Amino acid sequence: MTDASRLHNWGRWGSDDEIGTANYLTPETIVAAAKLVRRGLVISCAIPLEEGGPVYPTRIQPKHVMTSTGADFAAGKPGSGRVPEGGIKFADDYIFAALQCSTQWDGLAHAWYGSQLYNGVAETEIRGTGAHRLGIEKLHRHFVGRGVLLDLPPVINQGARLAPGYPITADDLDRVAASEGVAIESGDIVLVRTGHLAWFYELKDKREFWQGAPGLGRTTVEWLHRHEVAAVAMDTAAIEVQPCETPGATLPLHGALIRDLGLTLGELFTLDALADACREDGRYEFLFVEPLLRITGAVGSPLNPLAIK
Amino acid sequence: MTDASRLHNWGRWGSDDEIGTANYLTPETIVAAAKLVRRGLVISCAIPLEEGGPVYPTRIQPKHVMTSTGADFAAGKPGSGRVPEGGIKFADDYIFAALQCSTQWDGLAHAWYGSQLYNGVAETEIRGTGAHRLGIEKLHRHFVGRGVLLDLPPVINQGARLAPGYPITADDLDRVAASEGVAIESGDIVLVRTGHLAWFYELKDKREFWQGAPGLGRTTVEWLHRHEVAAVAMDTAAIEVQPCETPGATLPLHGALIRDLGLTLGELFTLDALADACREDGRYEFLFVEPLLRITGAVGSPLNPLAIK
Amino acid sequence: MTDASRLHNWGRWGSDDEIGTANYLTPETIVAAAKLVRRGLVISCAIPLEEGGPVYPTRIQPKHVMTSTGADFAAGKPGSGRVPEGGIKFADDYIFAALQCSTQWDGLAHAWYGSQLYNGVAETEIRGTGAHRLGIEKLHRHFVGRGVLLDLPPVINQGARLAPGYPITADDLDRVAASEGVAIESGDIVLVRTGHLAWFYELKDKREFWQGAPGLGRTTVEWLHRHEVAAVAMDTAAIEVQPCETPGATLPLHGALIRDLGLTLGELFTLDALADACREDGRYEFLFVEPLLRITGAVGSPLNPLAIK
Amino acid sequence: MTDASRLHNWGRWGSDDEIGTANYLTPETIVAAAKLVRRGLVISCAIPLEEGGPVYPTRIQPKHVMTSTGADFAAGKPGSGRVPEGGIKFADDYIFAALQCSTQWDGLAHAWYGSQLYNGVAETEIRGTGAHRLGIEKLHRHFVGRGVLLDLPPVINQGARLAPGYPITADDLDRVAASEGVAIESGDIVLVRTGHLAWFYELKDKREFWQGAPGLGRTTVEWLHRHEVAAVAMDTAAIEVQPCETPGATLPLHGALIRDLGLTLGELFTLDALADACREDGRYEFLFVEPLLRITGAVGSPLNPLAIK
Repeated sequence: MTDASRLHNWGRWGSDDEIGTANYLTPETIVAAAKLVRRGLVISCAIPLEEGGPVYPTRIQPKHVMTSTGADFAAGKPGSGRVPEGGIKFADDYIFAALQCSTQWDGLAHAWYGSQLYNGVAETEIRGTGAHRLGIEKLHRHFVGRGVLLDLPPVINQGARLAPGYPITADDLDRVAASEGVAIESGDIVLVRTGHLAWFYELKDKREFWQGAPGLGRTTVEWLHRHEVAAVAMDTAAIEVQPCETPGATLPLHGALIRDLGLTLGELFTLDALADACREDGRYEFLFVEPLLRITGAVGSPLNPLAIK
Repeated sequence: MTDASRLHNWGRWGSDDEIGTANYLTPETIVAAAKLVRRGLVISCAIPLEEGGPVYPTRIQPKHVMTSTGADFAAGKPGSGRVPEGGIKFADDYIFAALQCSTQWDGLAHAWYGSQLYNGVAETEIRGTGAHRLGIEKLHRHFVGRGVLLDLPPVINQGARLAPGYPITADDLDRVAASEGVAIESGDIVLVRTGHLAWFYELKDKREFWQGAPGLGRTTVEWLHRHEVAAVAMDTAAIEVQPCETPGATLPLHGALIRDLGLTLGELFTLDALADACREDGRYEFLFVEPLLRITGAVGSPLNPLAIK
Repeated sequence: MTDASRLHNWGRWGSDDEIGTANYLTPETIVAAAKLVRRGLVISCAIPLEEGGPVYPTRIQPKHVMTSTGADFAAGKPGSGRVPEGGIKFADDYIFAALQCSTQWDGLAHAWYGSQLYNGVAETEIRGTGAHRLGIEKLHRHFVGRGVLLDLPPVINQGARLAPGYPITADDLDRVAASEGVAIESGDIVLVRTGHLAWFYELKDKREFWQGAPGLGRTTVEWLHRHEVAAVAMDTAAIEVQPCETPGATLPLHGALIRDLGLTLGELFTLDALADACREDGRYEFLFVEPLLRITGAVGSPLNPLAIK
Repeated sequence: MTDASRLHNWGRWGSDDEIGTANYLTPETIVAAAKLVRRGLVISCAIPLEEGGPVYPTRIQPKHVMTSTGADFAAGKPGSGRVPEGGIKFADDYIFAALQCSTQWDGLAHAWYGSQLYNGVAETEIRGTGAHRLGIEKLHRHFVGRGVLLDLPPVINQGARLAPGYPITADDLDRVAASEGVAIESGDIVLVRTGHLAWFYELKDKREFWQGAPGLGRTTVEWLHRHEVAAVAMDTAAIEVQPCETPGATLPLHGALIRDLGLTLGELFTLDALADACREDGRYEFLFVEPLLRITGAVGSPLNPLAIK
């Protein structure tokens, strides 16, 4: 059960609901979002998925492997068939990776507290064979909507990246939205930029990156709930501030957002190019399309989110 | 070198071009595509990515593995931190998979003949360390455009799925487009439905599925080139007809399209739900957004393509 | 708890024991086994570990991948260092595989019934993070001993492989031992040949191989216990007869042997060359050395068992 | 071609030979080695194969994953079959790992210089599909023989581990052998202990471990060749001294040993327990059995080498 004094959406969309705040994405919000396309400019929010990237210390690096290469054919491997001469040649590849090894989405089966996940799903439903409820495949037709970028550094920190440990408040979000002249609407996919991610690529010793991060603080939970935000994504690895504001707590907003609100999260989104483009045309709202891979029973997914202005 | 008598786009977008016909996607085509959104209906063209799916016989099945589960916590694994009580709990997962194990994209480094790939890139550039040129990451900001569905069975085969070995002709494509009242435009992403994929899920012995398939025949190469199609995707595993029309040839259109035209391909797209929706509202054009994963040096990518009506 | 009417070794070697019948391997048995080496002939019982091998239908094929090849260097990748000229070149590789994808060992954490494994270990000790008790690494200094080959076909079936579904009895084992002039001793590693494995490589449709197999029947449990056999290995995928003798049961001997007796098992051992060598010199006892990989928390291991005559 | 002024074994065992100095292992040497077993004591030279171990910086950590666990069954997954009650339960696992991620063997296809490997094999034979010549499977019936431990620290460095960068000389090896009262014989598997590996487990910052290591220096090549050593293994990651004695060279002994002599190498062997046992009984020779996994086309293999005294 969930604590009635905590904000939550259990039962809001029915006792069998498995998509949480993705329910705020409606045909109307999608039609309105499409109308935001003016320039025909596409900006990806994905970082390169490769070895050496910002993989959370509890996971191992992804490994991309080639099983057939041009070098093999140059070395004498024959092509297939007689036409064209020499046959057709194919390169092929595999990957071994944590689904959350790069720009990633946390699904509803990724985090919880107590013995239940979002909407009362028993934790025993998440097993060796995968997430039997709340799997990421339940969200495979979603996450098309109005994207809003809240670019914090220019407003909150004179343009500099927010410091590790800085807890973003609801006030911060409101100030930035006001400064940008954008209003948050039901069904929005809110992208919050801190500037933190670029720091990873500047560091010589990457271990520093994991010592702490700016991120959402506790006052943002009510804000996200009140605004009926469909999803939130950031340019940090864990969305919420680290170390946590509450002594002794570990990533409590993952519980408040994913488990209680049914609000899923995007992490390690690169938002610098998007921020540049928004600053350029003064518009911080756009069509946002970020399909998750339809992996049965997965709790997370890699993705390549696209902002379309 | 490429045979001057063959249709090709080498040099068309410069000698260093690495995205081929994705160049047909322009801000104008994207703005126009966004205007096609009327209903706010999102349809995914991804099949489930799971064991037991239609994996080409030259590859092995994908394996999704859980590294932390709700069952583990129920079995006594402690959560993290002291707040909330019992700590936060995380489920996590990994995957080992051929990048082309499910709904997939063939990049420009996936297929060629002779010793050069698209735009004269030496095959030795595709090595154990990946595709050093023409990698799929070069296409990570693309594939947003006007999608057009050419649903062949209703027009070509009385609604029944096309038979294995049926070579689709340029005339077939024209007939269907005319029947649907849709005109192909430069920069379009053309989706061709044969009905073949559903057959995989009906078969008891899946090996039958790989004996042959309907697909594009040789006359479609000039058609795709003339129409300046940005990409083509189908509900088959290999796009082109199998067995091939030309005796002794193996998948020659992969050479003609990917290598010569620089036209990349989508395979194992499920198009049945999209066809139903198009039939319902009579509109076979829509916004199509299909981001590829930004995997450095990859030759293919899994994806979840979304049609937005 | 275990049923007192069933044969078992719980508590026999202490309540904390995690190696079961490997306890029968003593310095004395090892010294005696080494004395059996006469010819200096080494015979491996491992089948090739490669794609296309006899992988149990519940698992996927192993995938061996090269991350650096000679072809890459021939294609232009530079060697390392200036000496010797051109530098040193390295090929390197990885594997993704079920630990029981080929010639394999079933550890004490692999099989059980009820809520406890061998020696009363709670099943909750076997979690997403591995086997916290009874892991295969507990057996990494074991399995050196006197090997005895019981070659059944010549005695039981006129030299032909045993038929699928044939339940090997204690009497069968005694008859063969007597015919070979070999007595089973405490601490022996008993290898039982049925001839079944070679059939896999003859079959055109490999799926037939999984329809049934000869194997140990229920009377062998007491025989193995009475003889204080340290381990048993066979040229089948599952040791015990399939389909099972008991209607409705699935692999019950895995429970009787692994869970109750603490007797671990080797599967998919190729015993044909060993049988030939034994027939040649008339000696069916030999030094047997079969190290398991020291994989922390694993429940199984691939291996290459060696018989030394 | 190989430089005639360099020591080499090309052609020594025929132009098609693919096992190099493993040819020194003969029935006679194996029979004699078995006679060395006196105590019946088995000592493993394998370190734990697990995440966090000493993986060479060019590789990624191994990942052991469970696909079925006791926790899953405790969470409600049913066992198989009706007998015994509740059915049989199986835990199962997979691994993704560099074949040289832990205690490992370097095969003849692992290292070379110029365009040829051992015995003139063209480097193009080592491709995306594996090592078509010199694969590690060629050595699957080998490496049973007389093991000799040369424990350097007590003789060379007052018992302390050798320092990073210390080049072991032929004289060092002779001194230690003399001190131990052991003579090197044709077909021996020589284990050289430096004490370096234990340092990895003491270090807080593991990156220090890779800054340099003690190891074989150039004078040992002739020594190994003259003594007809079948294989050499050490408690370091790369056998030879790092940084190299020769400025600008990178791991040149891998070329001199593997490519020129056809002498394969074992790395990351833990030799501390073995050294203790040898010091205890004063005997530095023993039966040594170290089977490699029979992985088709592999260039390396994990293993669990056993010394039997």
